[in-house]
Amino acid sequence: MITRFERQVSGQGLFDITRGVAEAMSQQGVTGDGLCTLFIRHTSASLLIQENYDPRVLDDLQTWMNKAVPQDPTLYTHDDEGPDDMPAHIRSALTASSLGIPFIDGDLALGTWQAVYLWEHRENPGPRTILLHIT
Amino acid sequence: MITRFERQVSGQGLFDITRGVAEAMSQQGVTGDGLCTLFIRHTSASLLIQENYDPRVLDDLQTWMNKAVPQDPTLYTHDDEGPDDMPAHIRSALTASSLGIPFIDGDLALGTWQAVYLWEHRENPGPRTILLHIT
Amino acid sequence: MITRFERQVSGQGLFDITRGVAEAMSQQGVTGDGLCTLFIRHTSASLLIQENYDPRVLDDLQTWMNKAVPQDPTLYTHDDEGPDDMPAHIRSALTASSLGIPFIDGDLALGTWQAVYLWEHRENPGPRTILLHIT
Repeated sequence: MITRFERQVSGQGLFDITRGVAEAMSQQGVTGDGLCTLFIRHTSASLLIQENYDPRVLDDLQTWMNKAVPQDPTLYTHDDEGPDDMPAHIRSALTASSLGIPFIDGDLALGTWQAVYLWEHRENPGPRTILLHIT
Repeated sequence: MITRFERQVSGQGLFDITRGVAEAMSQQGVTGDGLCTLFIRHTSASLLIQENYDPRVLDDLQTWMNKAVPQDPTLYTHDDEGPDDMPAHIRSALTASSLGIPFIDGDLALGTWQAVYLWEHRENPGPRTILLHIT
Repeated sequence: MITRFERQVSGQGLFDITRGVAEAMSQQGVTGDGLCTLFIRHTSASLLIQENYDPRVLDDLQTWMNKAVPQDPTLYTHDDEGPDDMPAHIRSALTASSLGIPFIDGDLALGTWQAVYLWEHRENPGPRTILLHIT
């Protein structure tokens, strides 16, 4: 079974989509045990499993990424959509486009401190579509 | 169902394998909706979802990777197969060995600008084998 | 079918879990062809497909990561659990939380030189739980 989940975020950063994914599964009447595979249909945003306890973790992740893949136009030849365009593609390449998460009794079997994040790499993104395959 | 897809590329870089994957699925008579999981049976090449519109994106990705993981033998102790050997393993560790892509009506449900790439990290690679699991 | 696999490791580094995964599959009576999806329930350790032949590959991977994501407290704001805490989250974000590996005749269809690793990013980790979904 495939369903989709859409999310509009405000700009760069990590956005917790755990509840949205859970609601999309619930709306499909998912019960029992199985596997939920998430796939993001974009190349300038990614999916991430990360800690959901201390928001400073999310800030530090973004800070590290900003240094490792700088928004410096002199570094890139592809700049059709502005200085955040090519860095977004590289940041997406370094992180996940798909995630496989088991579920038990209809609930994502995440660890105690885990959440599912949409990591947005563009400054003014459009709505992002994530496909969920459930088996 | 498991099938395999083989590809010989000329050297380092990103090679679009979307059509090859689609053909392998078609040859197996895949129809309807489901999940195609790709797995590359090598540790010096990887799988990537990336933009297929502007080839400069692929050049910039390779340029960034060349700087982040340099082919500098003084940095590594493992050099059995030449200066591109150990960097290839690190580049593979930073990118994906497996990808889960939903399909709808037998077609990979990629976004408008997405393609599936084989990212080859060796200068003189042998043929690369990718397994496809379809459910 | 979902099963779990637990591993206690001694500290940072790459630990081969291929045999443990195979044993967990065997204990469930897995035969035939299918897909094994691994999911690690932690955000400071990751899963990796990597070469299993030369241990220097594993050392070089760790050395590269130590430089790319330094354990330098001045770089991070989140430091609740010590100087290895935030780097562990970043290292986990750059590597995989889930892996999909096809199996054939009940055996993981890995390439000749491939093994499955737990990449531990903490210096004094607790036991790590990996879920296996088998279909």
